[in-house]
Amino acid sequence: MERTDGYGDPTKVMVAVNESSLKGYPHPSISSRSAFEWTLSKLVRSNFSGFKLLFLHVQVPDEDGFDDMDSIYASPADFKSMKERNKIRGLHLLEFFVNHCHELGINCEAWIRKGDPKEVICSEVKRVQPDMLVVGSRGLGPFQRVFVGTVSEFCVKHADCPVVTIRRNATECPQDPVDD
Amino acid sequence: MERTDGYGDPTKVMVAVNESSLKGYPHPSISSRSAFEWTLSKLVRSNFSGFKLLFLHVQVPDEDGFDDMDSIYASPADFKSMKERNKIRGLHLLEFFVNHCHELGINCEAWIRKGDPKEVICSEVKRVQPDMLVVGSRGLGPFQRVFVGTVSEFCVKHADCPVVTIRRNATECPQDPVDD
Repeated sequence: MERTDGYGDPTKVMVAVNESSLKGYPHPSISSRSAFEWTLSKLVRSNFSGFKLLFLHVQVPDEDGFDDMDSIYASPADFKSMKERNKIRGLHLLEFFVNHCHELGINCEAWIRKGDPKEVICSEVKRVQPDMLVVGSRGLGPFQRVFVGTVSEFCVKHADCPVVTIRRNATECPQDPVDD
Repeated sequence: MERTDGYGDPTKVMVAVNESSLKGYPHPSISSRSAFEWTLSKLVRSNFSGFKLLFLHVQVPDEDGFDDMDSIYASPADFKSMKERNKIRGLHLLEFFVNHCHELGINCEAWIRKGDPKEVICSEVKRVQPDMLVVGSRGLGPFQRVFVGTVSEFCVKHADCPVVTIRRNATECPQDPVDD
């Protein structure tokens, strides 16, 4: 039995989170943190039992292997250890969000999937059926978007639930806006 | 002084509403009602003092004049009476939403603007600076969208605040999906 505010099942908000491209694990990206903070301050507010947060972290296989470019893979065990390391890094990221919810007394779940973030987020929405999806966005201009693609735009179009996109504050934007 | 849940200013949610194309005033469109019901059940829930709802109804000048095609305009007073009628019809629509909020004890404001809904909604977002905008959507397919255009898609791209689009339930879709 989940605690609720007496108004039926808690509102299930899925929040897609990823790591910072500047600081790496366990640091969440600026836009993930913005999305999380917006969810807490604007939606959940004081109604901790009325919401359940679902944190989905999608690890991109290539990106995660990048740091291992200099590594030597000589046996199956080497690959296994790389996979273990990636898993640990992902868990560190999720810990940030889960700890925060735990401190506030907000029910939550968090998990990791591998693949193309936009595709995986949409398929997880189909599977889990949240009431809404919150995605952070770097707020890139049209020119930058052509090169980097944006997960949020894809989800707005294709996810099977209401989607809200939270743009980073202009003040938090790093020197290269593609970073996050 | 506004009442709040103790977590700072209430979250200001702007809800764009329009009349039903089937029943006319004072009936809200199916998608406006869906957007409103979603806002109450999924966001506000029991936290009545944590939210303030802002209902914006944009009247399209041409559309509103349509019923008056057979009227005869012989004097400035005739135009004035038409304008009065449109105003009264718009007020009836807003009454539906304001009454509902009043019964629940949710702080709200409602107003009417004239013009192109997508443009006016975005300019009112700039002026009022809500924390988020909720727009209903008929959930039309790509083929239908070409002909009718969609306000929600425009707002998602251009409004200066987080936007959430609420699609009608498939069960509530009228025979002609362009109707609402």
